[in-house]
Amino acid sequence: MPRAISLLEQIIAWVRPDMTTPFDFEPLLPAGLPAAAARWSGRVKYDFTGGNNDPDRVPLDGLVAAANAVLRREGRTLATYGLNSGPQGYRPLRQFLAAKLKADAAIDCTADDILMTSGSLQALDLVNGALLERGDTVIIEQDCYQGSINRLVRLGVRPIGIPLDGEGMQMEPLANVLADLKARDVRPKFIYTIPTVQNPTATILPLERRREMLRLAGAYGVPIFEDDCYADLIWSGKRPPAIHALDDRGGTIHIGSFSKSIAPALRVGYIVAPWQVLSRMLALKTDGGTGALEQMVLAEFCSGQFSKHVPVLRAGLRAKLETLMDALKQYFGAAAQFDDPQGGIFLWIELPASVDTAKLYHSALAAGVAINPGPEWSVNAAHARNRLRLCFANLSHEEINQGVAALAEVCKREFALAGV
Amino acid sequence: MPRAISLLEQIIAWVRPDMTTPFDFEPLLPAGLPAAAARWSGRVKYDFTGGNNDPDRVPLDGLVAAANAVLRREGRTLATYGLNSGPQGYRPLRQFLAAKLKADAAIDCTADDILMTSGSLQALDLVNGALLERGDTVIIEQDCYQGSINRLVRLGVRPIGIPLDGEGMQMEPLANVLADLKARDVRPKFIYTIPTVQNPTATILPLERRREMLRLAGAYGVPIFEDDCYADLIWSGKRPPAIHALDDRGGTIHIGSFSKSIAPALRVGYIVAPWQVLSRMLALKTDGGTGALEQMVLAEFCSGQFSKHVPVLRAGLRAKLETLMDALKQYFGAAAQFDDPQGGIFLWIELPASVDTAKLYHSALAAGVAINPGPEWSVNAAHARNRLRLCFANLSHEEINQGVAALAEVCKREFALAGV
Repeated sequence: MPRAISLLEQIIAWVRPDMTTPFDFEPLLPAGLPAAAARWSGRVKYDFTGGNNDPDRVPLDGLVAAANAVLRREGRTLATYGLNSGPQGYRPLRQFLAAKLKADAAIDCTADDILMTSGSLQALDLVNGALLERGDTVIIEQDCYQGSINRLVRLGVRPIGIPLDGEGMQMEPLANVLADLKARDVRPKFIYTIPTVQNPTATILPLERRREMLRLAGAYGVPIFEDDCYADLIWSGKRPPAIHALDDRGGTIHIGSFSKSIAPALRVGYIVAPWQVLSRMLALKTDGGTGALEQMVLAEFCSGQFSKHVPVLRAGLRAKLETLMDALKQYFGAAAQFDDPQGGIFLWIELPASVDTAKLYHSALAAGVAINPGPEWSVNAAHARNRLRLCFANLSHEEINQGVAALAEVCKREFALAGV
Repeated sequence: MPRAISLLEQIIAWVRPDMTTPFDFEPLLPAGLPAAAARWSGRVKYDFTGGNNDPDRVPLDGLVAAANAVLRREGRTLATYGLNSGPQGYRPLRQFLAAKLKADAAIDCTADDILMTSGSLQALDLVNGALLERGDTVIIEQDCYQGSINRLVRLGVRPIGIPLDGEGMQMEPLANVLADLKARDVRPKFIYTIPTVQNPTATILPLERRREMLRLAGAYGVPIFEDDCYADLIWSGKRPPAIHALDDRGGTIHIGSFSKSIAPALRVGYIVAPWQVLSRMLALKTDGGTGALEQMVLAEFCSGQFSKHVPVLRAGLRAKLETLMDALKQYFGAAAQFDDPQGGIFLWIELPASVDTAKLYHSALAAGVAINPGPEWSVNAAHARNRLRLCFANLSHEEINQGVAALAEVCKREFALAGV
């Protein structure tokens, strides 16, 4: 007798006293939600975290001119989802990318093979969403981008880390892991790699290792997920061909971004993949398209000026890296070990074994210095315990020097480093 | 003996013959993926689908001026994720919204209560992600936005539809459903409603029903999820206070968008919610922020010109609606039943019971006319079987007239409608 129940409930409802006590959402939250975000408290004085870029190298004049030109010419298309380009993204930007990827990375693709995304972070979500489910196994570089590790953990996917050396992921451990997994009837869903300016080690995987990774991936029937978002930032401007370019079988998914080459606050990235799987990612992209104004302005700017802009950006980044390395030598001496990266916006540093960078993170923050503690950027916490990542692009030369000095002070005080 | 296995596997790998056959991703795809997307084949001649807007009413001059001003003044902040505003989005835009929501919808909130999102579609995903899990029950309007229905189905959540009349969701059926669910110990996760220009019925929930919905929601401990993305498009410019504004207990989550008031290809929406739950949504927003250029341009444009722009947009939309209603009377006569909407960009039409709009969709498409068949916009397929949604903002007056004529021809041919 639903009606009777309903009336009764309504009477109960009327006499309820709790209509003014604040509503409590807590009991409604599903299990497994990430912890609540904290209120943003502003930027730290010396912020060495995050993939931020050099504010002095944002190509403002070019972006303003591009915005004027493209809005005057095509602005009315903003009235339509997807402009006149459909769900894969603004076609002129995909056409620019197809040409750029051919010229820089030797990737042979067309605009139809590219899906524009809201930054390469959405690209990570779409690739993961199309291939992964709870309980899956994937292979990644042992020291790896925190955002990629966190996504796998949240999805209930097991990441197996492969050690790196000065030339990126090592192939013998990769072969062993693939063989061991196969012996246990485990087929990893993909090998995730950042082969070109790896995050956080800034290593570049040589051509031979790229071929060997492809050979192993082919032999074991495992796709390669190539994250190339830093590849534009190699000092020499010369990069090895993308793994995607070397893959004759179409078993590689390639993603990239404009965050590192133009500006990270513009949320524009892309996926290059065979339609068999790209069509699945497109079906998962239910966001009404990636920001059109940003795609239009980027296409207009990049088609004429990308190749002029990036070398200027790189020169500024290289100079800041040298300031960082000098400051580390000055204030840490032999206590800070690192390689001189061939590109990128970050430095991966090893401190003496006595330093726990997870602890250092908190004391440094109290001193106004934000760092990325190694354990957050690795699936091998013990290996990364005394390592940290410092991003240098967003700070001024003075801030880099002062920030490293302040960090050294904290290390001296907290960990009594010799030579500091 | 993992090493031995490894060598063996490597030998097998070397001799494998399949290194050139195309890689097959199919066996790697998890169960439950949505169907692969089809290749985009360009826009249909008469496209009455999608929340597209009037290309002639995109405020181009204002957007160009805004882009120039804001990029010149603050463009260098694009080098930093989140600009200088943190993860909730560009602060000047949140400040504009707080003032606008107060003036238009009587919502009393500050910039700190607002999370900018990549369109209100991401807002839907974040609210759903923070509150829903497989097996949950939610209450929605029986005829409802397809994107909201599809999201619930994909999440394995059960939507219970409440019938609408000319004034939106009916309260007695809502009371009955809440009581029935409580009698079965089912606590719905929220009541999802589009109270102000409902999609697809274009109804506006009167103040008394908003209060009654709040009373019932409070009595049963159910939050209200208020989707207000069409609220700016009421012809009179007068809207009832938002449900969020009437809720003294903070049990209402309010979302909105700039897609309908400025341009849909700009992917900028927002959530207004208590920090207890907004902080959970923020933790789920792992996209590196919403497109900064679009937020900056919108804030710059809207702070000065939003209130001048929207009435001009509304006048153009109202004129197109009248063209659509005239065309329906001319070509369908009494066979097409509809109310004259008080706002919005779409018309919800009932055809004679003989018409199956899911079938009509295909024959109309073959004739160059795209429509939204009723069953895709309702959780009651039988009720919606002979209904359809026509969006009118994006077409010219001529296209609206010709498209309706072409649709009538199809109906006459396929369903032998009397009076058509």
